[in-house]
Amino acid sequence: MIGIFDSGLGGLTAVKEIRRLLPYEDLVYFGDTGRVPYGTRSKETIIKYAAQDVRFLAEFSPKAVLVACGTVSSTAMEEIRDLFDFPLIGVVEGAAEAAAKQTVNGKIGVIGTSATIKSGAYTKKLKEISSQFVITERACPLFVPLVENGFVGVDDSITRLACEHYLADLRAAGCDTLILGCTHYPLIAKTIAKTLPDVKLISSGAESARKLQEKLSTLGKLADNSNSSCSSNCYGKISYYVSDDIESFSQSASLYLGADMDGKVHRVDIEKY
Amino acid sequence: MIGIFDSGLGGLTAVKEIRRLLPYEDLVYFGDTGRVPYGTRSKETIIKYAAQDVRFLAEFSPKAVLVACGTVSSTAMEEIRDLFDFPLIGVVEGAAEAAAKQTVNGKIGVIGTSATIKSGAYTKKLKEISSQFVITERACPLFVPLVENGFVGVDDSITRLACEHYLADLRAAGCDTLILGCTHYPLIAKTIAKTLPDVKLISSGAESARKLQEKLSTLGKLADNSNSSCSSNCYGKISYYVSDDIESFSQSASLYLGADMDGKVHRVDIEKY
Repeated sequence: MIGIFDSGLGGLTAVKEIRRLLPYEDLVYFGDTGRVPYGTRSKETIIKYAAQDVRFLAEFSPKAVLVACGTVSSTAMEEIRDLFDFPLIGVVEGAAEAAAKQTVNGKIGVIGTSATIKSGAYTKKLKEISSQFVITERACPLFVPLVENGFVGVDDSITRLACEHYLADLRAAGCDTLILGCTHYPLIAKTIAKTLPDVKLISSGAESARKLQEKLSTLGKLADNSNSSCSSNCYGKISYYVSDDIESFSQSASLYLGADMDGKVHRVDIEKY
Repeated sequence: MIGIFDSGLGGLTAVKEIRRLLPYEDLVYFGDTGRVPYGTRSKETIIKYAAQDVRFLAEFSPKAVLVACGTVSSTAMEEIRDLFDFPLIGVVEGAAEAAAKQTVNGKIGVIGTSATIKSGAYTKKLKEISSQFVITERACPLFVPLVENGFVGVDDSITRLACEHYLADLRAAGCDTLILGCTHYPLIAKTIAKTLPDVKLISSGAESARKLQEKLSTLGKLADNSNSSCSSNCYGKISYYVSDDIESFSQSASLYLGADMDGKVHRVDIEKY
């Protein structure tokens, strides 16, 4: 199986893409809904929480874990990678590669949580690809609460105003490509696109699914349906675990998955890990 | 000493008032900055976190603990009160009493986190005072992130729009008094007042300090400065504990306290309690 985790529900935007790319894989998703958000916390706390999250997923003996959280991917990857013997894939690398491919004028914008932008992880990765890129980063700490509280309508006036507030710098910088460095942001992508017309948006969650596929392919560990008793349309199993109550997760999950949620939801006391 | 806790920094608005009313008391403040916010979590999780918070403060043998968190005060008071042998004072009662005294037309509004409004605790308490009151409650889940991310200028356009979004119902209901049922909200009181002119605003944190004073007076446990070697202007000692890093707390605390922070800040691993 493949483990996936996020501070909350945003990582489900990566699950959506994994199921499209890797339909035969069994998946276990953990959302730390009892401690969300991570993006406003200190590096030390983010590392502690992320290590607990992966220790929980390790119980399922995953062949890989996708860190579907922009904050953990940019802040704590080195620290948690050392603790485990299975591959950990974050969202930074895939999104940076996709942005590097898409940009024409070499001007790339990055938006994320405060912790993600403070880390400078996207700039570092993009500069490794080409030192010529001109990169503008901007923390957008209101975007996660806006998404989580349902202000996701394309013409929502508060979200429009928040986009204007945060994204004006990126427009002024002339970016032609923008990395959505937090897995919550695809839910307000249309409002972001209205604020930055003609800018190519890169979903870090979706791109990380592609990196996961590459990694498993390299390792020769991709699941296929040859052992399955079901038809070629048969999906692998999926289970969800959360650290707060099950009901509110179930109510919101379909919004992120873009489809009805299948699979069962369980509660876990993550502080024990 | 007196213990005070909140999910984060909002409870400092109560500390400010306690120091004015009870200058000779020693205070220990705990802010659960590693798990803030509480107001969007389930009742079960709020009870669990609040019990840990009070268990930590119990180590200091407090004569009373002020629950300076609107969410815990409205959602978990009965459950946590049973666990401890010192008095626990929440913010609901004092604010409800103050609103009952202030209102002329009997139409009272209440704003708070999702959990606070879901609890109906303010309506219950106000109805106990008078069944004639007409009460309008409204959850304002964006207010805490707006305050925590610094959108506190009186003419901040995003906060103005959020106020209009949340408070239009209260204006339509003709409320002449509004309870700020979350200890973060005094920081945007001026913007709220612009949206609801001529409405009397009640700060639940400040009113709870008055209830605390009443309680200690009844118990004959008020500190005075008779044993103190310092002048009559001498304050009791204050210590701060937080569950995330110390630096970000120190940077923001003066905003809530309305003065420079005195006293030391320490970090505590609250999950162990």
